[in-house]
Amino acid sequence: MNITRPTLLVDETKCRANIEKMVAKSKAAQATLLPHFKTHFSAKIASWYLDAGVDQCTVSSVSMAEYFAENVWNDITIAFPYNRLEANAINELAGKINLNILLESEESLEHAKMNLTNTVGYFIKIDVGTHRTGLDPRNEEVISALVNGGSENLKFIGFLTHAGHTYGARGEENIRWLFEAVKKMLLPLRDKFGGILSFGDTPCCSMIEDLSMFDQLRPGNFIFYDWMQKEIGSCNTEEIAVCLATPVVAKHADRGEIVVYGGAVHLSKDSLGKDPHKTFGKAVKLNENGWDHEIIGNVVRVSQEHGIIHLSKNEFDQVKIGDVIGIIPVHSCLTADLQGHYLSTNGERIEKIVKN
Amino acid sequence: MNITRPTLLVDETKCRANIEKMVAKSKAAQATLLPHFKTHFSAKIASWYLDAGVDQCTVSSVSMAEYFAENVWNDITIAFPYNRLEANAINELAGKINLNILLESEESLEHAKMNLTNTVGYFIKIDVGTHRTGLDPRNEEVISALVNGGSENLKFIGFLTHAGHTYGARGEENIRWLFEAVKKMLLPLRDKFGGILSFGDTPCCSMIEDLSMFDQLRPGNFIFYDWMQKEIGSCNTEEIAVCLATPVVAKHADRGEIVVYGGAVHLSKDSLGKDPHKTFGKAVKLNENGWDHEIIGNVVRVSQEHGIIHLSKNEFDQVKIGDVIGIIPVHSCLTADLQGHYLSTNGERIEKIVKN
Repeated sequence: MNITRPTLLVDETKCRANIEKMVAKSKAAQATLLPHFKTHFSAKIASWYLDAGVDQCTVSSVSMAEYFAENVWNDITIAFPYNRLEANAINELAGKINLNILLESEESLEHAKMNLTNTVGYFIKIDVGTHRTGLDPRNEEVISALVNGGSENLKFIGFLTHAGHTYGARGEENIRWLFEAVKKMLLPLRDKFGGILSFGDTPCCSMIEDLSMFDQLRPGNFIFYDWMQKEIGSCNTEEIAVCLATPVVAKHADRGEIVVYGGAVHLSKDSLGKDPHKTFGKAVKLNENGWDHEIIGNVVRVSQEHGIIHLSKNEFDQVKIGDVIGIIPVHSCLTADLQGHYLSTNGERIEKIVKN
Repeated sequence: MNITRPTLLVDETKCRANIEKMVAKSKAAQATLLPHFKTHFSAKIASWYLDAGVDQCTVSSVSMAEYFAENVWNDITIAFPYNRLEANAINELAGKINLNILLESEESLEHAKMNLTNTVGYFIKIDVGTHRTGLDPRNEEVISALVNGGSENLKFIGFLTHAGHTYGARGEENIRWLFEAVKKMLLPLRDKFGGILSFGDTPCCSMIEDLSMFDQLRPGNFIFYDWMQKEIGSCNTEEIAVCLATPVVAKHADRGEIVVYGGAVHLSKDSLGKDPHKTFGKAVKLNENGWDHEIIGNVVRVSQEHGIIHLSKNEFDQVKIGDVIGIIPVHSCLTADLQGHYLSTNGERIEKIVKN
């Protein structure tokens, strides 16, 4: 691999293994897998799901839905609150593919009913504790109005949730505890109002054994995983399928730090922990087939183009200016968003959505 | 303006005023202004500098230098440590334009001397307290070797520094105190070794009255400014020249929060303050000519596509789903990096570098 600039490496074998594992889990649960494509943004990587028999997906924006609709995906759920300003684009898309949207207020339902003329399915977004958006599951008055407020072409499908607060959890026991609370909030809704239950976040979908109470699973991050998921307990280091290759441009022996070409515009500013133990990524050595799994250092600071990596004395002495060091990202979705393309560990250039 | 998706608005009048002010300051100091283009990434916006008589610039990567070299800029300094893996690209560029690079070790100097055949100028990077990269100004042995280690075509130009630690400062007095320390480190180098002094960070260049001791000034952020600069004291709210327009998609009366389509992939995850007073941006109302200067709320959380804005009761009641709310970014450089293009407040689409 002839790397001269920051380049996001993707290991296809690991991705396919992560996909297979989640497909098997969904089958065991008799749930449909609709992987979230906001992690990879790539038609090519999406095709690895097709190979595994997955033909429905989730996205988080209308523009992402448009891109994947142009790239063979014809059953897409936009898991983001209905943006009425994009009603025309949504309607146009619904004329071409099977499209589901998310509603969480009567005003949005009324707007969708008035403005969408093609057939569109809708989920009601339920807030199970993340407090980002969605209805409180106890708010049965509004939920009932939304369930019964559809029309000939705007059809109620069920309840959708994302337990994003699991990202604050650490370890299986903690995840299980949160999961039990989520179940108690969600299951009664299906019993009472009908429809299906669509559930999904990478920590729960990776760590909870029995997911058979759900009809749909929508995790996304698991195809790549990252250091955050490793800390939560969703994966091990070997399963992480992306790594940012960064050229070493300076060494500072007095503080055991190296400077790499690879900063906030390549990794994002997502971090874990607090100063002085904050991390923006974990350093690894690259090898012929991708990267080693041994962590040799910590990305302690990033500015726009610089990454500062702290290494042990032994590792510091081995690294030379002009080497290329790998960084396991803290949050692979945001790191992937920042790239123009991927480089597979087989040396293949993989295209993704271009922001325009 | 027909905005349906997150869109970065840029106010050309404010940008031009910010440019004029810095041009005047540079002239008064008899210093050459080489504005840093890592803030805007745009040939069109760069042309506003040309209109103000500025014809040299600074960039932070070889790819950025390539883009601006293709867009009429023929005197560029790459203010990032020499990346030997890009030696061929650097050499090629140096065959076309007047190019300066940054060195901070004898190994890098030797590599550049061996591999760059076209004429290239070099600055020695001095660390004045940021501890990101650069040489300690007291390290006269290495500095002397670098000053005297040039060749026929690799020419020593002077000393370059970026006082990035001013970003942690608040208010003029604090900035002045840091600035005095920086001067004490830098000025003796020119006296002893010759060459010019290239200095630049937006806080110092905005707040320090007399910059006449420097030969070059390289601030970048000041063309846009942002909420971080406002908190540091570099600008007032009225001078901030970019604002992310975001559609409102949900309201949560129980917690006084609205949800906008506009998150980490539009704003970046750069933030100020600590929980529960953390901010990822400041909310303003849009108007016919751009945006109001009154702050109506705080972006308290962001996930990939969602922004959560806390509003006062009065403002909350006025906002409707389907409105478009403006967000003054915390860090305009990272916000600009995330866009495919800008929209000027005159309704003009402005292109920028596309990552590919």
